[in-house]
Amino acid sequence: MTRDHHSDAAQAELALSAGQELPAHTAKLRTFLESRLFQNSILLLIVANAVTLGMETFTEIRAEYALLLYRADLIFLAIFVIELLMRIYAYRRQFFRNGWNVFDFIIISLSVLALPNAFSAFRAFRVLRVLHLVTVMPRMRVVVSALLDSIPGIFSVGVVLVLILYVFAVISANLYGPDHPDLFADVFTAMYTLFQVMTLEGWPDVASAVAETHPSSWIFFVIFVLIATFTMLNLFVAIVVRVVEEDSEDLEHVLVRENAELREELQEVHGEIVQLQETMSRMDRALALALQDLPAARADDRDKT
Amino acid sequence: MTRDHHSDAAQAELALSAGQELPAHTAKLRTFLESRLFQNSILLLIVANAVTLGMETFTEIRAEYALLLYRADLIFLAIFVIELLMRIYAYRRQFFRNGWNVFDFIIISLSVLALPNAFSAFRAFRVLRVLHLVTVMPRMRVVVSALLDSIPGIFSVGVVLVLILYVFAVISANLYGPDHPDLFADVFTAMYTLFQVMTLEGWPDVASAVAETHPSSWIFFVIFVLIATFTMLNLFVAIVVRVVEEDSEDLEHVLVRENAELREELQEVHGEIVQLQETMSRMDRALALALQDLPAARADDRDKT
Amino acid sequence: MTRDHHSDAAQAELALSAGQELPAHTAKLRTFLESRLFQNSILLLIVANAVTLGMETFTEIRAEYALLLYRADLIFLAIFVIELLMRIYAYRRQFFRNGWNVFDFIIISLSVLALPNAFSAFRAFRVLRVLHLVTVMPRMRVVVSALLDSIPGIFSVGVVLVLILYVFAVISANLYGPDHPDLFADVFTAMYTLFQVMTLEGWPDVASAVAETHPSSWIFFVIFVLIATFTMLNLFVAIVVRVVEEDSEDLEHVLVRENAELREELQEVHGEIVQLQETMSRMDRALALALQDLPAARADDRDKT
Amino acid sequence: MTRDHHSDAAQAELALSAGQELPAHTAKLRTFLESRLFQNSILLLIVANAVTLGMETFTEIRAEYALLLYRADLIFLAIFVIELLMRIYAYRRQFFRNGWNVFDFIIISLSVLALPNAFSAFRAFRVLRVLHLVTVMPRMRVVVSALLDSIPGIFSVGVVLVLILYVFAVISANLYGPDHPDLFADVFTAMYTLFQVMTLEGWPDVASAVAETHPSSWIFFVIFVLIATFTMLNLFVAIVVRVVEEDSEDLEHVLVRENAELREELQEVHGEIVQLQETMSRMDRALALALQDLPAARADDRDKT
Repeated sequence: MTRDHHSDAAQAELALSAGQELPAHTAKLRTFLESRLFQNSILLLIVANAVTLGMETFTEIRAEYALLLYRADLIFLAIFVIELLMRIYAYRRQFFRNGWNVFDFIIISLSVLALPNAFSAFRAFRVLRVLHLVTVMPRMRVVVSALLDSIPGIFSVGVVLVLILYVFAVISANLYGPDHPDLFADVFTAMYTLFQVMTLEGWPDVASAVAETHPSSWIFFVIFVLIATFTMLNLFVAIVVRVVEEDSEDLEHVLVRENAELREELQEVHGEIVQLQETMSRMDRALALALQDLPAARADDRDKT
Repeated sequence: MTRDHHSDAAQAELALSAGQELPAHTAKLRTFLESRLFQNSILLLIVANAVTLGMETFTEIRAEYALLLYRADLIFLAIFVIELLMRIYAYRRQFFRNGWNVFDFIIISLSVLALPNAFSAFRAFRVLRVLHLVTVMPRMRVVVSALLDSIPGIFSVGVVLVLILYVFAVISANLYGPDHPDLFADVFTAMYTLFQVMTLEGWPDVASAVAETHPSSWIFFVIFVLIATFTMLNLFVAIVVRVVEEDSEDLEHVLVRENAELREELQEVHGEIVQLQETMSRMDRALALALQDLPAARADDRDKT
Repeated sequence: MTRDHHSDAAQAELALSAGQELPAHTAKLRTFLESRLFQNSILLLIVANAVTLGMETFTEIRAEYALLLYRADLIFLAIFVIELLMRIYAYRRQFFRNGWNVFDFIIISLSVLALPNAFSAFRAFRVLRVLHLVTVMPRMRVVVSALLDSIPGIFSVGVVLVLILYVFAVISANLYGPDHPDLFADVFTAMYTLFQVMTLEGWPDVASAVAETHPSSWIFFVIFVLIATFTMLNLFVAIVVRVVEEDSEDLEHVLVRENAELREELQEVHGEIVQLQETMSRMDRALALALQDLPAARADDRDKT
Repeated sequence: MTRDHHSDAAQAELALSAGQELPAHTAKLRTFLESRLFQNSILLLIVANAVTLGMETFTEIRAEYALLLYRADLIFLAIFVIELLMRIYAYRRQFFRNGWNVFDFIIISLSVLALPNAFSAFRAFRVLRVLHLVTVMPRMRVVVSALLDSIPGIFSVGVVLVLILYVFAVISANLYGPDHPDLFADVFTAMYTLFQVMTLEGWPDVASAVAETHPSSWIFFVIFVLIATFTMLNLFVAIVVRVVEEDSEDLEHVLVRENAELREELQEVHGEIVQLQETMSRMDRALALALQDLPAARADDRDKT
């Protein structure tokens, strides 16, 4: 999704540049789909659908208006499916080149696929459709893009964190598993318990439970808490650093550009001085020649007398 | 409020510039209201009122001095109302153009409106009057302005966070609501529970309660904790970034300004060199002309002989 | 303490520069007090004293070696008192101009004052003497100075935080005090409870306890948690910003200095061009004069013929 | 470990430059060890070993396949030992100059030493062998290096934090130890309890337990929480600052370098102008000399007539 979010502007351009060669109705359809009115209507429908999905969670409302809400939801879904098909028709292949469109396609397809088993647990995930909101609101798109962009920067630290979690989980499962199967039965249970410890939530309870059978287990927990929080801290620092570095790179570009301008101007001055020097050399030579002749002429004059 | 906090200085200027055309007593009143002595007196009264409001919360004190404290509170309120009216009279329309004044107007009006039901729960909010302190202390005003200024920068991330909370709340209300009505009865209860989870406070307890009926619910909680904390992290990064960017923009301005000065100076040098070149070209031409004549003259001389 | 920590180097200088006029034994004493060996011995004694104070906390050790430890502590204290007196004698008035010295004076004086009631609760605070370590280790001094230096920057935000805490405490004491005296009896109890909520520790428990009697109290807690964490976030941002700004000011200074050098050099070039222009103008005038005469001369020659 | 992680590139260079003088088979061995295929095979084997070590923690799997897993683990270990010996043979002394190699040597040696007591608790730490992964993946090495590099920057703050913890622990052990031996029995128990308080986890529970016997103990806990969190905040700030400073130093270097280039160019211009001036002075003098003669010559001419 990340790699494509820059292509939004590109797509708009394509729509304009290639639009003249397109059949008139496709061009019109694109204009309609990109119109503020249409976008805001879709926005309103998503919010309305979010509200009905929220209302369904109240037992009393569900008891009384279940069918009504179900039908409303079907209508909302139908509208979103039609919107999606219109967009696919209008942009054809270009449609799937944009990550946001792919995202919309997936969440709406899932909603359609969930229809047959409309009363199972799968229904709960219909609300993911509300995330379509992000695609419709440009400001939200910027925020989510920024969130996704910061992932690669922290991915490596995240892998190190998972590695640390795994190593400590295997150690704790071996050491404390037999005595505390509820907390450290196997590597997965241990990883979950240590994930809790990593969020610092209730870690003294876990530590004191283990301390009953393993008095020196506090060393394990203190070391894990220190290493885990230190690594998480660096995860956060990694994000801040990325932003600061981008910023200072911008500044560096400005600096280099500004100085390049200065240097250009200086080179111009340099060129003119070289020209000046040439003129002067010519004058110097001419003058020298003239002054060499002059006394000779005068000498001639004097000789004449 | 934010958009107006820069107008403090502006108002002071207006008071000075327009003051000469104002009736003498208005000008005097403004000087009085802006005097250090008056400001500090109001500051002291606010602190005193804060103390009496605090004292009222002690059962023994309230039992013995209820009437006294009530009367003192009335007097404090009367003074603040008079101060407000004086300021409105002195600044007239300008008064409401300043966000801080509007803020004072609202908190003192609310205190007056709360008077009739002076012994109801509404009384509790009289203490909001103490926030008048922020208006009176310039340093506090700077801090609160900075706090308010950082809101727009994180608003978009906040909206994304609320959207995430809503989507997860609807899912959890659907999945876990029937079995855990105390935690996930409806979308609002679920949002409150997930808000707790988002602060990481007691989330393992919530997760283990749900895990009893839904063994794989840990996936839901781990994903929610990861997404929520990651988004909150970016909320924080957004604030830091804004500050760093402002700072680096300042630096960029200095850089551009400094280099503009350099370029101007360089251009001056450039101009002078061009002038030099012109002078020299003229000299060169004149000399060439002169030297062209000179041999001719000499030739004449020679011919003559 | 903060305002004086820059004077460490200054004092060392004074010791050297003024040392020659001092009586020889004072100069010698200063050299001794500032010698690496003496400083490290004191460092070792502080660590040893810290260990004995730690050992005293073990019941078994205290039972057996109480007197021994008490005597050792007296000896340690005596040494520190002698060291302090020596430093006061060596530096006289200068001694109290340095914040670190004043800090040492206070913690050691307190230890002496605690002697008479050596077996009371006051004894517990003898360990503050260990903070003398900070004065002896230059690196620690840097860290603590940095910590203290960051206080003014966050002081204003801290005041706002206390104001928020107070306002919310008075409101909660009024609203929930009568029903929950253990949590919100009076404004101080409420402030302590809300301080806990502010650290996010166990806030759902507090909120759910209050919710039993006040179903809509969740609004109060959610608003308080949001405002308090947001303000604390800005407290942290304030520290980071201060550092970033200092850094960017440094960079600005370098930029301005560098460009000033460039401009100076440019001005030199400018001056030379002006000189060049003068030379050329003189040449131009001289040449013009000469060329004006030359044809005349030639005309004369021609006339002659 | 930190001091050596820059030598990776250096070692690669050595391998290339010194490789020609090495016996052909050593050079070949190095090429093989550094080949992508070999590195990825080792990577795969480490992951496979991590999986088998994780599987061993499941009681059912252990019950059925204990011997198989044990043998697999022996084979994995044998391969890692052979890999290590090959690397030692190929690089000889250079091997131990690289911190990562030393790290591998230690974790694999420990695994070998753990073999005899292969069924004791010591077995749990075999999983540390998985950390060999960090050495094999260059990206992980960068992350871990960054983590280790940030340690010196926070070391001093860490020491201050430990000092604070120790001082508060001795005070609390003296004050609350006798009444709350489970929390504050001796200085170590107190340090562990205060470490929990420092992570803010369950501190209100600790505080309320102590408050039962010491009503004013809340002062101790509030002060400790404030000081500890403030110091930890600065620990984090220290990391961010280090990064920001490095970044701004880079920018400063670019600035100085860019301006040095400008200055050089300006100096060149300067030099040319000086040359120009010399040429012009020569011309000026020559011209002046010529013009001095000219009227004389003309005067001669006139005299002649």
